Amino acid sequence: MLDVCLLGCGGMMPLPKRFLTSLLIRHDGSNVLIDCGESTQVALHMSGFSTKNIDHILITHFHGDHVGGLPGLLMTIANNHRTEPLHIWGGQGLARIIRGLTVICGALPFELVIHELSFKERQTFQTGALEWTVQPVKHRVPCLAYSCYLPRGGRFDLARAEAAGIPKQYWSLLQKGESVEVDGHVFQPSDVLGAPRRGLRVSYATDCRPAPALVELVRDSDLFVAEGLYGDPAKQHDAAIKGHMVYSEACRIAAEANVRELWFTHFSPAMINPKEHLEAARKIFANCHVGHNLKMTTLRFDDDA
Amino acid sequence: MLDVCLLGCGGMMPLPKRFLTSLLIRHDGSNVLIDCGESTQVALHMSGFSTKNIDHILITHFHGDHVGGLPGLLMTIANNHRTEPLHIWGGQGLARIIRGLTVICGALPFELVIHELSFKERQTFQTGALEWTVQPVKHRVPCLAYSCYLPRGGRFDLARAEAAGIPKQYWSLLQKGESVEVDGHVFQPSDVLGAPRRGLRVSYATDCRPAPALVELVRDSDLFVAEGLYGDPAKQHDAAIKGHMVYSEACRIAAEANVRELWFTHFSPAMINPKEHLEAARKIFANCHVGHNLKMTTLRFDDDA
Repeated sequence: MLDVCLLGCGGMMPLPKRFLTSLLIRHDGSNVLIDCGESTQVALHMSGFSTKNIDHILITHFHGDHVGGLPGLLMTIANNHRTEPLHIWGGQGLARIIRGLTVICGALPFELVIHELSFKERQTFQTGALEWTVQPVKHRVPCLAYSCYLPRGGRFDLARAEAAGIPKQYWSLLQKGESVEVDGHVFQPSDVLGAPRRGLRVSYATDCRPAPALVELVRDSDLFVAEGLYGDPAKQHDAAIKGHMVYSEACRIAAEANVRELWFTHFSPAMINPKEHLEAARKIFANCHVGHNLKMTTLRFDDDA
Repeated sequence: MLDVCLLGCGGMMPLPKRFLTSLLIRHDGSNVLIDCGESTQVALHMSGFSTKNIDHILITHFHGDHVGGLPGLLMTIANNHRTEPLHIWGGQGLARIIRGLTVICGALPFELVIHELSFKERQTFQTGALEWTVQPVKHRVPCLAYSCYLPRGGRFDLARAEAAGIPKQYWSLLQKGESVEVDGHVFQPSDVLGAPRRGLRVSYATDCRPAPALVELVRDSDLFVAEGLYGDPAKQHDAAIKGHMVYSEACRIAAEANVRELWFTHFSPAMINPKEHLEAARKIFANCHVGHNLKMTTLRFDDDA
């Protein structure tokens, strides 16, 4: 299970009724935040998700609307008495940006662990059970798109477990992927589990142009959160010059990548009504939705067939 | 005439319904902003005051809730196509703080002129017609309180102007303080103006402990915007430890300094209802009021007696 909350849906600057684009993903009590603009901490406060339990912050790029809220959030987390290390992931130069922004933070009661990723090639890393893939994307400045995958083990084969004489109290350990020893005999998870099943994938791409590598990154996502700076397809040229996407472009990526659901975000402040061009977009990819402050969902594994 | 807008009234962190403490003063089309926390630009957007016309930003101290919104605001001002220099005033170390925070700003289309003030002694400077006095105050870190005075010239003496034979078209120049030449004779403003009259004074002191120098700074203010971290007088000891004031302390300063009107601000996030202790405060200083987001007033010169 993954809880997902789009904290805001704006681009460029926070507006009175539109927080800046930022995504929170919660799994197993640990929160991962992608991007942190000015006021993201206010949206977090309203969301009910704990700031203290943010263990990882992922930054797409160093434009102010994606990173300007970091010092304030770090201070609020400090004020909530976090002492565990907090990991920040982003492209090359991240340490310099963090060093600059935290000039107003004073001494934090937790360690900041900075992970600089490459802006040049696809990479992977892990946060808890979540497997992240990072893809450099084309914007006016170097930028990264993120996709996280929560794997799911194979189905537990009751008949095999009983036939092998494994006592019930060991079953949950095997299901969790651990081996167990019973009367001197070691059982592996593979002894009682079927082939791995479909997990859950959430992908996030903002401030970028479409590209084949982006399609591959988000392939088979349960949820794809993508920028739609404008809904109006007539503004595609304008968006392209600025290194952004319009709804129709995000829809084509979603369709090609076999995505299940698409949310638009990172709206231009000039776009007053993001729903205006939604119907046209749905002709390209039916299950697309306009993001809004605190848009939440909980993704669950498919029911077993 | 001075337009004054308390943009927010919170301390420590922005809350969903409480912007951080910041004051905007407008005179003659030019805006001066005191402090700029995260989300101050959102409050500005709602206030209707132009961000592009902010010519001066004054910083009390370098805690995040007073300066964390600077990079975002500067980027928004840049986006509004300002090209004129923008002046930032604050204590020693300001340049280092600005250098750190603007690491995410890229190239701004206007010059930032940094003015570092002393944290050790009273100083003065001028922005347009406004005469500023700066007073170091006692907080956990070095901090400044600001007071601005808009002077008012003497009353125009019609009888003297007519007796001197000064043509009417020169009267407004003399009223503005300029000398004029008429048929080879130079007239000075003092030839037709009485003694200077009472001007307007607005003072701002947050994150500080009471002190005699603070009383002197805010003496005879039309409006004193002062922190009241807590309303409850029982929390005075707690506030003092943190280098802050409670309502009653701000009231005593206002009473001693012959202030006309007092607004409380910089409320602790723990204080849910800032009005709770207002009646008790009014027994010390009657004309005190609880600040709120976008609390505005227009100060005008006294009617001539």
